[in-house]
Amino acid sequence: MSFDFRIADITLHEAGRHQIRLAEHEMPGLMALREEYAEEQPLKGARIAGSLHMTVQTAVLIETLTALGAEVRWASCNIFSTQDEAAAAVVVGAHGTAEDPQGVPVFAWKNETLEEYWWTASQIFLWPGADEDPQQGANMILDDGGDATLLVHKGVEFEAAGAVPSATADDPYEYTVILETLRSSLAENPKRWTGVASALRGVTEETTTGVNRLYQLANEDQLLFPAINVNDAVTKSKFDNKYGIRHSLPDGIMRATDVLLAGKTAVIAGYGDVGKGAAEALQGQGSRVVITEIDPINALQAAMDGFQVAVLNDVISTGDIFITTTGGKDIISADQMQQMKDKAIVGNVGHFDNELDIAGLAEIEGVEKVEIKPQVHEWVFPNAGGRSIIVLSEGRLLNLGNATGHPSFVMSASFTNQVMAQIELFAKSHKADYSGHDTYRNGVYVLPKLLDEKVARLHLDALGVGLTELTKEQADYLGLDVAGPYKPDHYRY
Amino acid sequence: MSFDFRIADITLHEAGRHQIRLAEHEMPGLMALREEYAEEQPLKGARIAGSLHMTVQTAVLIETLTALGAEVRWASCNIFSTQDEAAAAVVVGAHGTAEDPQGVPVFAWKNETLEEYWWTASQIFLWPGADEDPQQGANMILDDGGDATLLVHKGVEFEAAGAVPSATADDPYEYTVILETLRSSLAENPKRWTGVASALRGVTEETTTGVNRLYQLANEDQLLFPAINVNDAVTKSKFDNKYGIRHSLPDGIMRATDVLLAGKTAVIAGYGDVGKGAAEALQGQGSRVVITEIDPINALQAAMDGFQVAVLNDVISTGDIFITTTGGKDIISADQMQQMKDKAIVGNVGHFDNELDIAGLAEIEGVEKVEIKPQVHEWVFPNAGGRSIIVLSEGRLLNLGNATGHPSFVMSASFTNQVMAQIELFAKSHKADYSGHDTYRNGVYVLPKLLDEKVARLHLDALGVGLTELTKEQADYLGLDVAGPYKPDHYRY
Amino acid sequence: MSFDFRIADITLHEAGRHQIRLAEHEMPGLMALREEYAEEQPLKGARIAGSLHMTVQTAVLIETLTALGAEVRWASCNIFSTQDEAAAAVVVGAHGTAEDPQGVPVFAWKNETLEEYWWTASQIFLWPGADEDPQQGANMILDDGGDATLLVHKGVEFEAAGAVPSATADDPYEYTVILETLRSSLAENPKRWTGVASALRGVTEETTTGVNRLYQLANEDQLLFPAINVNDAVTKSKFDNKYGIRHSLPDGIMRATDVLLAGKTAVIAGYGDVGKGAAEALQGQGSRVVITEIDPINALQAAMDGFQVAVLNDVISTGDIFITTTGGKDIISADQMQQMKDKAIVGNVGHFDNELDIAGLAEIEGVEKVEIKPQVHEWVFPNAGGRSIIVLSEGRLLNLGNATGHPSFVMSASFTNQVMAQIELFAKSHKADYSGHDTYRNGVYVLPKLLDEKVARLHLDALGVGLTELTKEQADYLGLDVAGPYKPDHYRY
Amino acid sequence: MSFDFRIADITLHEAGRHQIRLAEHEMPGLMALREEYAEEQPLKGARIAGSLHMTVQTAVLIETLTALGAEVRWASCNIFSTQDEAAAAVVVGAHGTAEDPQGVPVFAWKNETLEEYWWTASQIFLWPGADEDPQQGANMILDDGGDATLLVHKGVEFEAAGAVPSATADDPYEYTVILETLRSSLAENPKRWTGVASALRGVTEETTTGVNRLYQLANEDQLLFPAINVNDAVTKSKFDNKYGIRHSLPDGIMRATDVLLAGKTAVIAGYGDVGKGAAEALQGQGSRVVITEIDPINALQAAMDGFQVAVLNDVISTGDIFITTTGGKDIISADQMQQMKDKAIVGNVGHFDNELDIAGLAEIEGVEKVEIKPQVHEWVFPNAGGRSIIVLSEGRLLNLGNATGHPSFVMSASFTNQVMAQIELFAKSHKADYSGHDTYRNGVYVLPKLLDEKVARLHLDALGVGLTELTKEQADYLGLDVAGPYKPDHYRY
Repeated sequence: MSFDFRIADITLHEAGRHQIRLAEHEMPGLMALREEYAEEQPLKGARIAGSLHMTVQTAVLIETLTALGAEVRWASCNIFSTQDEAAAAVVVGAHGTAEDPQGVPVFAWKNETLEEYWWTASQIFLWPGADEDPQQGANMILDDGGDATLLVHKGVEFEAAGAVPSATADDPYEYTVILETLRSSLAENPKRWTGVASALRGVTEETTTGVNRLYQLANEDQLLFPAINVNDAVTKSKFDNKYGIRHSLPDGIMRATDVLLAGKTAVIAGYGDVGKGAAEALQGQGSRVVITEIDPINALQAAMDGFQVAVLNDVISTGDIFITTTGGKDIISADQMQQMKDKAIVGNVGHFDNELDIAGLAEIEGVEKVEIKPQVHEWVFPNAGGRSIIVLSEGRLLNLGNATGHPSFVMSASFTNQVMAQIELFAKSHKADYSGHDTYRNGVYVLPKLLDEKVARLHLDALGVGLTELTKEQADYLGLDVAGPYKPDHYRY
Repeated sequence: MSFDFRIADITLHEAGRHQIRLAEHEMPGLMALREEYAEEQPLKGARIAGSLHMTVQTAVLIETLTALGAEVRWASCNIFSTQDEAAAAVVVGAHGTAEDPQGVPVFAWKNETLEEYWWTASQIFLWPGADEDPQQGANMILDDGGDATLLVHKGVEFEAAGAVPSATADDPYEYTVILETLRSSLAENPKRWTGVASALRGVTEETTTGVNRLYQLANEDQLLFPAINVNDAVTKSKFDNKYGIRHSLPDGIMRATDVLLAGKTAVIAGYGDVGKGAAEALQGQGSRVVITEIDPINALQAAMDGFQVAVLNDVISTGDIFITTTGGKDIISADQMQQMKDKAIVGNVGHFDNELDIAGLAEIEGVEKVEIKPQVHEWVFPNAGGRSIIVLSEGRLLNLGNATGHPSFVMSASFTNQVMAQIELFAKSHKADYSGHDTYRNGVYVLPKLLDEKVARLHLDALGVGLTELTKEQADYLGLDVAGPYKPDHYRY
Repeated sequence: MSFDFRIADITLHEAGRHQIRLAEHEMPGLMALREEYAEEQPLKGARIAGSLHMTVQTAVLIETLTALGAEVRWASCNIFSTQDEAAAAVVVGAHGTAEDPQGVPVFAWKNETLEEYWWTASQIFLWPGADEDPQQGANMILDDGGDATLLVHKGVEFEAAGAVPSATADDPYEYTVILETLRSSLAENPKRWTGVASALRGVTEETTTGVNRLYQLANEDQLLFPAINVNDAVTKSKFDNKYGIRHSLPDGIMRATDVLLAGKTAVIAGYGDVGKGAAEALQGQGSRVVITEIDPINALQAAMDGFQVAVLNDVISTGDIFITTTGGKDIISADQMQQMKDKAIVGNVGHFDNELDIAGLAEIEGVEKVEIKPQVHEWVFPNAGGRSIIVLSEGRLLNLGNATGHPSFVMSASFTNQVMAQIELFAKSHKADYSGHDTYRNGVYVLPKLLDEKVARLHLDALGVGLTELTKEQADYLGLDVAGPYKPDHYRY
Repeated sequence: MSFDFRIADITLHEAGRHQIRLAEHEMPGLMALREEYAEEQPLKGARIAGSLHMTVQTAVLIETLTALGAEVRWASCNIFSTQDEAAAAVVVGAHGTAEDPQGVPVFAWKNETLEEYWWTASQIFLWPGADEDPQQGANMILDDGGDATLLVHKGVEFEAAGAVPSATADDPYEYTVILETLRSSLAENPKRWTGVASALRGVTEETTTGVNRLYQLANEDQLLFPAINVNDAVTKSKFDNKYGIRHSLPDGIMRATDVLLAGKTAVIAGYGDVGKGAAEALQGQGSRVVITEIDPINALQAAMDGFQVAVLNDVISTGDIFITTTGGKDIISADQMQQMKDKAIVGNVGHFDNELDIAGLAEIEGVEKVEIKPQVHEWVFPNAGGRSIIVLSEGRLLNLGNATGHPSFVMSASFTNQVMAQIELFAKSHKADYSGHDTYRNGVYVLPKLLDEKVARLHLDALGVGLTELTKEQADYLGLDVAGPYKPDHYRY
């Protein structure tokens, strides 16, 4: 077997393989699916274009997809998040060598430029022969954040228009890069994306941002294929947001700063699932946690959980640590950062880096930015007697930038949802040869609750959990099936 | 003013009034509604038949309803839960005296028989003149558990049939009582319930059980009027279940037994909202908490929260305290209770008393039941060297039986939802003179999220919470209105 | 058997016996001593004058002492703390009846006057025949707070002086009562206390206050017999202070007020063992806890444990609940209480009621004191629009006044220390026929660490604890004996 | 200035200086001493031989000692613990350059051999000219673990004997190295250590192990100079043990394995201060914590804190993570490690690496040791289907080996004690020109409680703590001085 790929250094594959082996032990859901579907091979014939952080955990996901019969091409969905040894190990495969790689084409490395990033996003669709016959190309997308899906939709749009528009002055720089990427593509093949879209049976999407984009497309009736919203599975959103952050937030702060969290006042913006995990983590380390919130329900929850809830300006000069978890923007302004205590620590685990006004910081006249170590910067304010703050990961997700993101067990739950969603959609898309009553048409779906419960079920043994089984009589009394699902759809867990 | 009522002792009203005054301070949501609607009087013309535990908190609810213009008749929805001094105070009213009561007709006292209970349930519909002209009777129900609603539906059913059927051998005793109650009613007035139903604009229902009955009626197309499901408001289900139990479970165990919870192994059946509150409460007291669960998602949550999750039989002989929170039945069998450690404590905060097989206990030959004090019984097993267990509240809700149930602040959130639901339904029922686009037809509805958020909002000041307000720009970025609602409907909090 | 006693109502003995039986199950240390010493009867010949809260737990203590061979006379050490049914049960004994009591002489009832209190304190020394022959009277004291010990020392002092002095204007009223009590005594028998003191082999003292008095006497060389300081056993001070309060503080607040603790700001004065237990309890209920401290070490501990540490005036108007735990005085002044939020709750679990300036409250002109229920008072401030605070137990220990004090398991550890101390001192006092190398002379002693460890050991089985045993090799490596003691004396646990 | 030193790479000094600057912000106690004693220069004339982990925090300690007038030579007390950039920065000093270092002679680098280690230990005593005139050499030791003190005592012993004995077969290898080191020394100068000892005014010792050695020497009357036991200051033992480990244990496990701690069963051997911190940390991350203990008092504490307490063999096959915190040996045997679950994680934060039988592991025939990354090894058992365990830091302190040890704030408390102890002993040793009533003679002392309280006091401002001050009246009531000390010596905090 021989194939195209582009990664940082293929000789890292052995180190990556060790880590994959350990991660497999922490990803019981994926390993159980490999076993359950070893014979059936439900993804045989699936050609999956994957765009998701190329980490060790994703390596286990990719190798689960191939173990179920799929062919796969992969890129990362973030310019910084690739773990180079994981990428190498996936390319080499469990039985290949650096000289004779036998794994999966991967286009990803740590620290890509934006131009490189969108080039890799294109590569996952460029299957050999697909330009000639789209049916030989990708028929599924596995997406995180929606960039792969965006590329297809924009490609189709511009191909229909016959040309790629010029960027305007207001467009963010990244959009310029996307336009340029597609401009080259149209030059090479003016019907490429139209072909790709025709062959795609659907997409399974990992995150809130991607899901929001999908609902928008669906509402505007522009969605080109069915989509499964993996993000809102209970075993995804209530698990990786809360329990993932509870792990990776203190991990990131500690690796970055080695600062004792005990006794510090930690201000956490947002008390959604991420904020809840963050608050629990820091309280567990002896910090005094203060919450800021815009939603009165979440604010009341925070109060009931024993936390002070305040507006930011009331604690701006007494907090020692400030963490944003909101998904919103301009949560902490540059002006507010100047009011903080000397050496206050500022970081973000929400979504985009615009939760913190880092751009505003840089514009302060005379401000000095000192790199303490990679991803840890001291911003020294002018005329402030040396007063400075410590900014983590330049305002990007610090749990990824300063630590290693969500741990394997949490990702196992998310990714088990992903694999089940791929199986479901590959078989039952209206663009597959399927005409059952549960055919998926263009639209956005969540997985049935029974599958959500199955994901949980596959993770219990590893933790030694003894699960009680309803008797038939008890189930009847509750109006339930013994095998589930056990809760109404509106149940909040 | 003069009116009918039946309570335990009207001279208790002063004690009740003190408690109501203190409870008002803890029920800021209700007090805020009184202020907001003082002029508008949105419940003017409403005649509410209320069936809900006649406690001090309910007294504040009742007086809020009347402050908004409603007329009210009230019964308790549980034979044990009436606080006699609260009933007395409601009858007397804030400005009446025992000799000249000026409050609200109440039919409730602690420790009713089943016959008495269903008599009181009838009384809340017997408004003066209503038998002659149903439009002078109740036009709204405020229900908890659905008994008042059931009575109307069964009455209508039997009146249509022209007769009340005989109970069969399989019917529970309580059903026999209901039939007898309606048989007398038909004898008095064979069209009473048909008239009542015709005048009713709707019901607002407090709990899961009642809500389930409503959905069943709606699914079978037999619902006689619109219903608002108050139970599933976030500020109800996620608050009184979790935070209410976290308070009242240890309160109940301590008042009942004075046993140190620290170091004890506490087995909690169920890790829903009630189970979560229970687990947190007992862990906060130093118990080692073990969870049993049937739902793999909740089981995984329990494990992630650090609790051992086991099947009951594996911990039956090592647990010191056993608490059911499930809403199911036969959670702990009499046989399992015999396997427990000497003096193990057994109680229920789920729903009905059949979570524990108390009936089975009583059938053990030679078992001895010793009353330690009211609502605390020791069951001594035969031929077991004096080994015994302690059963709280005879298997009924121990937080009500051994303590005083949910505290005022928690009930304030629930009841603020109730009042808003009454206002909504009274005005917009299709049986009212209303034909707006949001008319409520026969069916089951939840309150709009904006009202849910309002309930939370009304409780923040009392806790000194500083709520952050979105800027217009931030709201636009998130696709939200500055004033809310802030979350999609499927958001789980 | 026939004997003198004075209690509230002997017919309560059956209720008391039930409670004693349940308490025995929670007091494994005492029950183990009964078994261990059943044959040896190490307290045979001991005549113990006991002065300690006459509760159910104390009943188990008393019956343990008699099971080990002792004769006992008992009074309570607090005018409010007697549980009348426990007193009755002790008088009747396990095998007696109300008509034919066969237990122990008890002089105690709930709500004694100060005159009655000091009369009961005298009674425990008035053994039949002892006035004639002191050697037939008490030879041991078991004391709590030191009142019994004080009476003997003052009696001896005044008998030596030949007269009881008059009280001065500055003396507290209680001292006047003591003087009067002794004046009557000297009139009856001018050498009574001199005789009593000559026969006493020693005292075992339960609390800090009593221990402080003993050290003072010892330092002034006026101690008339040896004393064992039970208070400072690890299994006493680190257990009943912290774990006892963690139980009984929320219990007391809930029984008194039914107020939801979640979301409330609770200000706790003091972060010693009692304060630590209080803080943990309220945090476990979802309160936001703020600590005040005078000791920088404890203040730093509080901060490291995640609590805000502030001076009282900075939180006086934002706190909802104020609890003193200090043992000091004037912790919250009447003026500060006037600055509190409406309906703030104020209580004390420290030591004396002078931690709160209740006297100062009463002196505010126009203040109104409303009894909500026994031990719960609302103080309404004049000209404050009805603003009021809720004071628990009139400033006395609210965990005793509003709940039932420390639970049995915690008292079992304390009382197991007491019994071992009685055995030790009865046998080895220099006033016994003992001349071993570990003879106790007049002075204050703590129990050897090995006995402290034994107390802990006797409580492990009940909690299902598996204790690891050192191998000989491991013990040698650590320079320890396999059987303990395991820690140096300065170890802080 | 020019001087001898040996470190890894002096060019690292700039990176080290950044870290020192940030650490200074987290070490308010040391910075406060620099300010307080800037003029007085109490360590002028002190020549300190320091042996303590050469980390960033120690750099702040060293520069505090020199800021107070001392001259210093430094070695690490552990072959792995040196942070090379810290060593470089100390050598260069705040105002020097790599070419012209102006700091302090340091003999330390990461990963020393044992031979190198004992060479560095000698170097701190080899002050220029000291071999000729011992009074020009070190007059103080600052020791951690007692190796520097041991070297002096052994040197004196062998010099007195005239020769260094040969190692026996039973001696550990390290002892052979010590003997060889001294053999060379005697060859160079047969009176070196006798001279060194004569000039030494005393030692201040950081840890339990070192302190135990000192008490042993003192008991055998062989201590050559006075010693201050810094370890048992409250602000040391109760702070760095508990709060330090609470930070650095999860930090170490996360950096080493990236494994989600939530839901895992973590078995912690020992519930002393280190075990308490470990248990709290892992519980805070959602682990289910099980404790093993030999001391019944600590075992009872663990139970009261809600943890399961078991013997190791009962949980050996269900635990996911095993952490030793005991200071003992053979806590987990190789045989027990073979019974663990696949991929169980095993680590030590107690004292020596013999808590885990790593040697025994290596002796298992056919066992395979795979390095996952430095300090993280997988041990694959033979004939076990690939079953393996993960051992951290080869059984040595994982919080140092896999993370960066205790954070600065915690070390600030310890080191503030150290500096105060150096000041005290340098001035008041009987070997100084001092003859006050508080002269320190050969023996082991703890610092007065007032200084302990001062250490705490110096750390409060940084955390925003508001400390309450006693009034004179309150202090009198408690029999205290307004300024402290506030507790009796036996108080346990």
